[in-house]
Amino acid sequence: MSWTITPDLIPGLARGAAVLGTGGGGDPYIGGLLAAQALRQHGDVTVVPLRDVPDDAVVLTVAMMGAPTVMVEKLPSLDEVVAPVHALEASLGRAVTHIACAEVGGVNSTIPIAAAAALGLPLIDGDGMGRAFPELQMVLPTLYGINASPLAFSDEKGNVGVLNTIDNSWTERIARVACVEMGCSVMISGFAMSGSQAREALVGDSLSLCSEIGEGIAAAREAKADPVADTVRLLGGREFFAGKVVDVQRATTTGFARGRARVEGADTTLELLFQNEHLVAEVDGNPVVTTPDLIIVLEHDSGEPITTEGLRYGQRVRVIAAPSDERWHSAQALAMVGPGYFGYDTPSHRFDGSVDAVEPSDEAAA
Amino acid sequence: MSWTITPDLIPGLARGAAVLGTGGGGDPYIGGLLAAQALRQHGDVTVVPLRDVPDDAVVLTVAMMGAPTVMVEKLPSLDEVVAPVHALEASLGRAVTHIACAEVGGVNSTIPIAAAAALGLPLIDGDGMGRAFPELQMVLPTLYGINASPLAFSDEKGNVGVLNTIDNSWTERIARVACVEMGCSVMISGFAMSGSQAREALVGDSLSLCSEIGEGIAAAREAKADPVADTVRLLGGREFFAGKVVDVQRATTTGFARGRARVEGADTTLELLFQNEHLVAEVDGNPVVTTPDLIIVLEHDSGEPITTEGLRYGQRVRVIAAPSDERWHSAQALAMVGPGYFGYDTPSHRFDGSVDAVEPSDEAAA
Repeated sequence: MSWTITPDLIPGLARGAAVLGTGGGGDPYIGGLLAAQALRQHGDVTVVPLRDVPDDAVVLTVAMMGAPTVMVEKLPSLDEVVAPVHALEASLGRAVTHIACAEVGGVNSTIPIAAAAALGLPLIDGDGMGRAFPELQMVLPTLYGINASPLAFSDEKGNVGVLNTIDNSWTERIARVACVEMGCSVMISGFAMSGSQAREALVGDSLSLCSEIGEGIAAAREAKADPVADTVRLLGGREFFAGKVVDVQRATTTGFARGRARVEGADTTLELLFQNEHLVAEVDGNPVVTTPDLIIVLEHDSGEPITTEGLRYGQRVRVIAAPSDERWHSAQALAMVGPGYFGYDTPSHRFDGSVDAVEPSDEAAA
Repeated sequence: MSWTITPDLIPGLARGAAVLGTGGGGDPYIGGLLAAQALRQHGDVTVVPLRDVPDDAVVLTVAMMGAPTVMVEKLPSLDEVVAPVHALEASLGRAVTHIACAEVGGVNSTIPIAAAAALGLPLIDGDGMGRAFPELQMVLPTLYGINASPLAFSDEKGNVGVLNTIDNSWTERIARVACVEMGCSVMISGFAMSGSQAREALVGDSLSLCSEIGEGIAAAREAKADPVADTVRLLGGREFFAGKVVDVQRATTTGFARGRARVEGADTTLELLFQNEHLVAEVDGNPVVTTPDLIIVLEHDSGEPITTEGLRYGQRVRVIAAPSDERWHSAQALAMVGPGYFGYDTPSHRFDGSVDAVEPSDEAAA
């Protein structure tokens, strides 16, 4: 059933999106500001479940690309948010009928709300990942052969580009260097697909889930209950670590926020390795959960999600492992988003501690 | 009067273009191969003087962008050459009527011949600089307010992009990083202009001049006459140095071939500083001629032009200084292409040894 995003739903939705964003996808507060402003200016946004999207719909994803460290300081204007959609409509020669989220994340779940409001279009209850990943080809539509291009990008100065590339990795490569040159954050739109393609390739109901998680954390806090337990239950995951952040190393390089954080528990130590998102969690040097499954860091008492760029010395945190969409565990998907792709020498560890048998290494592929 | 480029004219034209290319613009032999192949495949190309271009013509420049060091190893296919023109036609919603050269240079005077042949369009007898410069905004049309964008770029793999930027420097910045990511050489097309704009903003008759210079060098060699004297006369320049190349330093960085070469004369030493093109010539440490005037290096006996990537230890060379189009000496133009822009701490020295009084420095602009 369709539902409506009103300004009062934004804080919960953005909070839940930051939970599923696994540290990436940008600051939920910042992203929420833009969405709330757009709703007040242009009216509420209708959210359509995947099953209700017509077969012949023209669906575009809208997202912010860049380092979250920069995004939080460079919130786009509504003009910048809609510019790539208009550029793509001109390039496609067709009017867009639905907006979709490419990923779930503090900014990348709320920017599409702003875009849908400003464009007067419905937003699909779903996204391309069910979580956040750092590179643009890392969406389930890529696995279904859906082209990222034509892909449009725009900056706050008014520069716009449209790419038509031979595959989604080349879209990422060219858009990424343009993004870095344009100031490390741009608005993008692409992955044009029909309604039937969207139903097959997207993760359904993710905006509903974000809202439920985000409202649940606030309600538990209000009721003086444990704000983390409900999130763990909704995600079907497990809380596997609690402790204090004692070290954070972070650098914004080649357009990403890369780094690691050390968290000291009662008698073990957790190391979080991230590139925009948390990708590997090691306890006492042994990987316990890795990409593509979700590693979620929450503030100990409030249950508020902490993004990778928000990690600070002294924070007391609880860490959750949760399953990703099962499609991320195919051999083809693991080659694209498994630990090996990011340079970590470990097989994929699922949230429950099991290890994916299949991960094509460079050696196996050769 | 219109004239026709036939395959037998290509070697002379490419040689002359390499002379005016002041060391940049790519290898004339390589560029000539592609043009000759296109003419044989698609027929001869009509060259139209600027005065005969209709006011309402739709003119596009076509060029190769990148480091000449890479261009010589990665000659584009005809498909790649025409891809950005087709992308721009789609973006502009209009059919192109005339092709123009953005600059004069071994590759960038011959690639547009190939494009015109493959597209079945006339080529304008003129170009955007009257020489070669390393960055795409460095054309006289920029001084006339003509936008580089929409600008299309394409690579040999089939990737294509179209940029719409706020000014021509941003076109350069974004296209350059894309170019580097795509392998340090791409085909570009842009600077859409009307016939009346082309007449105002381009340098006229430059293809005719290239042909005359190139044929003159070959004829003089044939007649055992001095092959350099005729070039000096045609350019209204002067030969200011002769000697032997004793040192060449060259690096391909940030998409350019940058470096310096030392030439030892009878009792003085010449230092050539280049970035794709020769930009500063110093004799015994003192600048004697700089960008925007032309610094041309010819092989001592044959008069063959030597590109910056063709410079080798032991070559005996003669070096010519020649005037650029006078419009390059305005204050606005010098801010864009004068020695200061390239990081050389010297005012512009004209070919005859006089110094441009006006050159806005960073201090003056601040």
